[in-house]
Amino acid sequence: MPLTDAQRTEIEEHGQTTATTKRPTVPALEEILFRAHPVLDHGFVRVIDYMGDDAAIVQAARVSYGRGTRKVSEDTGLIRYLMRHRHSTPFEMCEIKFHIKLPIFIARQWIRHRTANVNEYSARYSILDREFYLPSPEHMAAQSASNRQGRGDVLDAETATKVMHLLRDDAIRCYDTYENLLDTDNGPGLARELARMNLTLNTYTQWYWKVDLHNLMHFLSLRIDPHAQYEIRAYAEVMLSMLEAWVPIAAAAFKEYRVGAVTFSATMVVLLRKMLAGETVTQENSGLSRREWDEFQKVLHG
Amino acid sequence: MPLTDAQRTEIEEHGQTTATTKRPTVPALEEILFRAHPVLDHGFVRVIDYMGDDAAIVQAARVSYGRGTRKVSEDTGLIRYLMRHRHSTPFEMCEIKFHIKLPIFIARQWIRHRTANVNEYSARYSILDREFYLPSPEHMAAQSASNRQGRGDVLDAETATKVMHLLRDDAIRCYDTYENLLDTDNGPGLARELARMNLTLNTYTQWYWKVDLHNLMHFLSLRIDPHAQYEIRAYAEVMLSMLEAWVPIAAAAFKEYRVGAVTFSATMVVLLRKMLAGETVTQENSGLSRREWDEFQKVLHG
Amino acid sequence: MPLTDAQRTEIEEHGQTTATTKRPTVPALEEILFRAHPVLDHGFVRVIDYMGDDAAIVQAARVSYGRGTRKVSEDTGLIRYLMRHRHSTPFEMCEIKFHIKLPIFIARQWIRHRTANVNEYSARYSILDREFYLPSPEHMAAQSASNRQGRGDVLDAETATKVMHLLRDDAIRCYDTYENLLDTDNGPGLARELARMNLTLNTYTQWYWKVDLHNLMHFLSLRIDPHAQYEIRAYAEVMLSMLEAWVPIAAAAFKEYRVGAVTFSATMVVLLRKMLAGETVTQENSGLSRREWDEFQKVLHG
Amino acid sequence: MPLTDAQRTEIEEHGQTTATTKRPTVPALEEILFRAHPVLDHGFVRVIDYMGDDAAIVQAARVSYGRGTRKVSEDTGLIRYLMRHRHSTPFEMCEIKFHIKLPIFIARQWIRHRTANVNEYSARYSILDREFYLPSPEHMAAQSASNRQGRGDVLDAETATKVMHLLRDDAIRCYDTYENLLDTDNGPGLARELARMNLTLNTYTQWYWKVDLHNLMHFLSLRIDPHAQYEIRAYAEVMLSMLEAWVPIAAAAFKEYRVGAVTFSATMVVLLRKMLAGETVTQENSGLSRREWDEFQKVLHG
Repeated sequence: MPLTDAQRTEIEEHGQTTATTKRPTVPALEEILFRAHPVLDHGFVRVIDYMGDDAAIVQAARVSYGRGTRKVSEDTGLIRYLMRHRHSTPFEMCEIKFHIKLPIFIARQWIRHRTANVNEYSARYSILDREFYLPSPEHMAAQSASNRQGRGDVLDAETATKVMHLLRDDAIRCYDTYENLLDTDNGPGLARELARMNLTLNTYTQWYWKVDLHNLMHFLSLRIDPHAQYEIRAYAEVMLSMLEAWVPIAAAAFKEYRVGAVTFSATMVVLLRKMLAGETVTQENSGLSRREWDEFQKVLHG
Repeated sequence: MPLTDAQRTEIEEHGQTTATTKRPTVPALEEILFRAHPVLDHGFVRVIDYMGDDAAIVQAARVSYGRGTRKVSEDTGLIRYLMRHRHSTPFEMCEIKFHIKLPIFIARQWIRHRTANVNEYSARYSILDREFYLPSPEHMAAQSASNRQGRGDVLDAETATKVMHLLRDDAIRCYDTYENLLDTDNGPGLARELARMNLTLNTYTQWYWKVDLHNLMHFLSLRIDPHAQYEIRAYAEVMLSMLEAWVPIAAAAFKEYRVGAVTFSATMVVLLRKMLAGETVTQENSGLSRREWDEFQKVLHG
Repeated sequence: MPLTDAQRTEIEEHGQTTATTKRPTVPALEEILFRAHPVLDHGFVRVIDYMGDDAAIVQAARVSYGRGTRKVSEDTGLIRYLMRHRHSTPFEMCEIKFHIKLPIFIARQWIRHRTANVNEYSARYSILDREFYLPSPEHMAAQSASNRQGRGDVLDAETATKVMHLLRDDAIRCYDTYENLLDTDNGPGLARELARMNLTLNTYTQWYWKVDLHNLMHFLSLRIDPHAQYEIRAYAEVMLSMLEAWVPIAAAAFKEYRVGAVTFSATMVVLLRKMLAGETVTQENSGLSRREWDEFQKVLHG
Repeated sequence: MPLTDAQRTEIEEHGQTTATTKRPTVPALEEILFRAHPVLDHGFVRVIDYMGDDAAIVQAARVSYGRGTRKVSEDTGLIRYLMRHRHSTPFEMCEIKFHIKLPIFIARQWIRHRTANVNEYSARYSILDREFYLPSPEHMAAQSASNRQGRGDVLDAETATKVMHLLRDDAIRCYDTYENLLDTDNGPGLARELARMNLTLNTYTQWYWKVDLHNLMHFLSLRIDPHAQYEIRAYAEVMLSMLEAWVPIAAAAFKEYRVGAVTFSATMVVLLRKMLAGETVTQENSGLSRREWDEFQKVLHG
């Protein structure tokens, strides 16, 4: 239930105002503008505004007087070239603004990306809603034995339910106390900036998050990775689909040269050459650690 | 002569494409979109794209689902409050992109503002035009005697003309050599990345410069200042008028609380209180240096 | 109880290794290096490393080959001049690194300053300690009636105790659940990256925070302000005293031209001139809002 | 001739002051501290100050109370892991400050890296020296035919000499005019901020440049690349050797996972798997453009 009826109405009304503009406009993105795309149990992502399109990347790379674009094939070639050679500045010329609702512990992970503009809903100034993230059973997993910062096996159904109840009960209880603390009639009327400390970290917050295309892709490349925590990956995946609606050529290049690309270390490059020359390479004679060797094998054999 | 006919045509054609958008749109800025506003002898500033308007500041400050704005008076009050108390993040939610043509020595001063996105015309890749800045007589000034980094008296007409000729002759000669160095038929066909080193610092370059509203105002507040070099101030003044077309409420607050505002040091505040209480304050008993005292007097007596 | 015995020993051992260096060294800061200065009930700040001193500011401003400093009076004058005229780059040439322990809800406020480097203790990777912030009675205050984001009257002793118990009970209960969730023997052995969501926002976290002198002063000027939340101000005050040990001349200039300085709006400057000329100025004829007028009066009359 | 005798003396005197510090200290870097390492004909790089060492990376990654390091093999493993997985924040915890003298056209390329602190010698405030970069014959190259932003064949000796004379004559003439313009006795005494526009882009400037280890490595990875312009690569190479003196473990990881590493696109990874499975892959059936295919072949066959 990411939205109340009142919010839905507000969004719909907002979407009914249109205007004429000379700016680059992307119909596929206009179509989903303002719409809340649900993520997790109460979260969402929605695009609030954007600046630029695929052509704006080309235009900036050429520092053009006019539209700056030529044939589609040439423009595509240029965008792919820029992506491949990490010429990042033309991608910085596009900008997008999101409204995102997300659990606080994920917001804390997210905010570490410093190259974005943020306005967060202030619990110093306002009162947070009674909404907390509770993982669905298929995302309730045990600590990974091999990876100190990852998940292992999914919990069995019964245990998952128990965990869910524990999380829910504590979150509710803490929120009840929060409300009580704020109460000026029957409670102490505690300052909001203090009362908020009683909330649990799965409480939802929300923010406006504005970022340029280069930094958005950097964020996505890190957070769409299988090693990223599932809860932030869920947001990244939705945002990748928004990226594809917005700048389809850049998005395709991004998937080719970043998301799906693989970096081989100096040692691995030497090993590759040996393998292609028919030499037998084993972990023992490779010079790679066990961990690196496993990563290497995984890439080579899909 | 900031534009060739071909450039003018390109710009005009670009401005004829319009589209329908749900995004915030500012008619006053649409009207001047793409248009080159001349600065100095060959330079210009033109707005290429923008994101957001006054209402977007309010919307971000409120982290709204819909438009987020209320009564005009309330919105104005909020924007002024945010400006006064240096709550900068809502202003970061608006973005603007300029195309600017400027002399290299000014570009070097400008680029020190790091919180913007830049794509500069590459003299490694392309050939620069034969255009250099030559100050008009009223801006030809002697070194200031009192301020090591400022100008003093304007040169007399005859001297100014002589200086202009010296600057022009060297620039032309250097540009001629540049062209000769690049010449693959009758010259050595030197690499562009090398040949460019022969140009003088008043040669014009151009770039796309994209910045958020908060950082634009910070740039303007520093560069519109009477202590800023005239040549960069000329750009800042044009951009301030563009700011006024774009976000009139924020621009008015900016002029009230930044451009026209004055900061008094801790000591000055104490002195002010004494003066208002009728005490006589002199430089000798003020605790201010001669220089600070002069600055103080200048503010107090306009 | 900000430190365990083991931590205290580790810190002491660390402080016993000394080396000879040609780098600028500040004896007053060396003396407190590594030492944990307590803040709030379980928090602390300690300086871990630093680069530069007052002379390094002067040296950078002069782009010197050698030490770059001259007479103390000249150097002091230059630093004050740079501070007064907001020439920020020479101050960026000094850097300091802190180790800070602080409640999560304060860490969330703090992290909004993006121009610093941060390494936070990861609750994805490790287990957080059973420590949460509980305000002391004199900091337990009701919501302010006049300021939506501030505190009003301090709670009476009895109510403060009740509030403290509510906060403590919820924090303990949530932490107990957290431990239980992580338990691989008698609990579900939930992944750390999930279990952490059950903690309350007053749980302590810690990080390494590295920042240059310019950005540190910007942070301090905002967070030492009476409008800042008490809990972050407590850290800012300790850090200001560290600033004074590190760069005494810059710190004095900072207090004179920033902390103790006051900015008057364009309208206020005009009013001030009228008042000094003997005219009677009232809120009604001032053009200031009631709120601005009150702020103005407060500055003028101390 | 990068240094005058006076400068040499200043540097030497500076290097004679030593102090005792508890901070991490790197003897190999102390040894070269302040020393000017020549680059190009009149340029240099010298390390002025530094913060942190290899152990400081480990310490930050562990958010330690004490030294934070364990066995050398464990620390090395951690640093390599952080580098491989692009965990950049621990590398941001080290900082280094350089004094660099370089031609203006290279400074313009360099400054595009925005994540550093810079104090440049001001030609608004001071007078630049009569020193300009003149490429040595082996670096005088024709424009590349295949790469729009690169060099092709080296010029023959006679042509190189001619080019050198052209560059030198224009630079000298422009500098003579500059001096004449500044002359208050026999010239117009033009303001320095104006006179500087007459200098050529190969004139030397200098700055203090301070950067964290993560951003230094990013800079080096881009500028040490064979596609980077020779003149900036010359600086990058000297700075890489300084990196090796400072943080040998991080530097080795940097060479293994960045400088010597190769990124394969999604398509290339699929092709590689086919090749290792014995399939014949040609440009025609590869799905790669001619250019990408050539790059791919070059990596695979060294």
